[in-house]
Amino acid sequence: MARLFHVPLSPYCRKVRLSLAEKKIEVELVEERYWEQDPDFLRRNPAGKVPVLRLDGQIMAESAAICEYIEETRPEPPLMPKKPEARYEVRRLVGWFDDKFHHEVTSKLLYERVNKKVTGQGYPDSKNVKEGAKAIKYHLDYMAWLLDHRRWLAGDQMTLADFAAAAHLSALDYISDVDWSRSAAVKDWYAKIKSRPAFRSILADQVPGFRPPPHYADLDF
Amino acid sequence: MARLFHVPLSPYCRKVRLSLAEKKIEVELVEERYWEQDPDFLRRNPAGKVPVLRLDGQIMAESAAICEYIEETRPEPPLMPKKPEARYEVRRLVGWFDDKFHHEVTSKLLYERVNKKVTGQGYPDSKNVKEGAKAIKYHLDYMAWLLDHRRWLAGDQMTLADFAAAAHLSALDYISDVDWSRSAAVKDWYAKIKSRPAFRSILADQVPGFRPPPHYADLDF
Repeated sequence: MARLFHVPLSPYCRKVRLSLAEKKIEVELVEERYWEQDPDFLRRNPAGKVPVLRLDGQIMAESAAICEYIEETRPEPPLMPKKPEARYEVRRLVGWFDDKFHHEVTSKLLYERVNKKVTGQGYPDSKNVKEGAKAIKYHLDYMAWLLDHRRWLAGDQMTLADFAAAAHLSALDYISDVDWSRSAAVKDWYAKIKSRPAFRSILADQVPGFRPPPHYADLDF
Repeated sequence: MARLFHVPLSPYCRKVRLSLAEKKIEVELVEERYWEQDPDFLRRNPAGKVPVLRLDGQIMAESAAICEYIEETRPEPPLMPKKPEARYEVRRLVGWFDDKFHHEVTSKLLYERVNKKVTGQGYPDSKNVKEGAKAIKYHLDYMAWLLDHRRWLAGDQMTLADFAAAAHLSALDYISDVDWSRSAAVKDWYAKIKSRPAFRSILADQVPGFRPPPHYADLDF
């Protein structure tokens, strides 16, 4: 069976979990305290990060490369469109969330509030938290603008771009950092994606010391 | 004709320039002072970063998404292998250089020494420079280890992984931050890639206020 070394609130791990679940690939989840840099773990991935996936007898790292591999070897149901222009747009948005959104929002809210505590690096930096709370508004507005003329973020079908975005937002929702009242379009989009069977394992996550708000796992939030 | 908005020493722009040149796609280069956040530029790319490429009537951003698009629409000569396992390895290494190497090395050497001055953000932080100078050794050793049993970084053919690595290293070489004596295997690899016609425009770059060392454009360095 496939095995994924992960941490529950990592958006990169969540994106891979969503891809695997949508393709109905069974996976054993193993929590990895990657910040302790265990030698066994470093042998599996010299980059020292999660996710690390064991699949088809290979050990793989880098969530973007993993998701493309899953898509190429298990094309059904598709999480990438067929045309190069549309595929470009999916990859642009995956980059948007995993690079820009991560840098401006996730690293300033989730990493300050949760990762610092879990890895014993002290208290949240309130300047960062303030900046992250401000930046997420701009990103939600950008998503609302995209969803104003598209059914899903990258076009008319659900793709890896939606999973990348939902992976970040679901992790932030676990710590009550998403204001769903800001845009009805974004809330509707999240309700659609949240109700997919692939999302169930993510809604069941529990991180000791951090209790999610009641609406976190509620499909009718 | 294609048009690329870029800055000369950006490794992400250089990776795209190498891909375009290898595929013999003529491109007009336009220097973009992206940090001034000109409204026209932000309309082309809301992420506010370079590279931005105009190609096939589209405006595109995010270097990884751009390179995949070029590969899908202009497959010859190939910069990606055919098999999913080999394609995974290329994408993993592109991620390695554009994420990990960038974070640990490029941002600490190039950004401190050049970008800060060009964008008027003051002097290099010597702690960062020291950390970057230490980290590049580890990365050169990792490349030497890969090249010990492979002709190119991701396998037996030249791929986007080589262009990603060469894009970072060439920018650092412009400011004399690469110790080529550390590994004969890495030096040989760089000599091979540097002598390709696709590399010419990069070796001709000039950044006002920063003169490259004599070996920068020398194929026999």
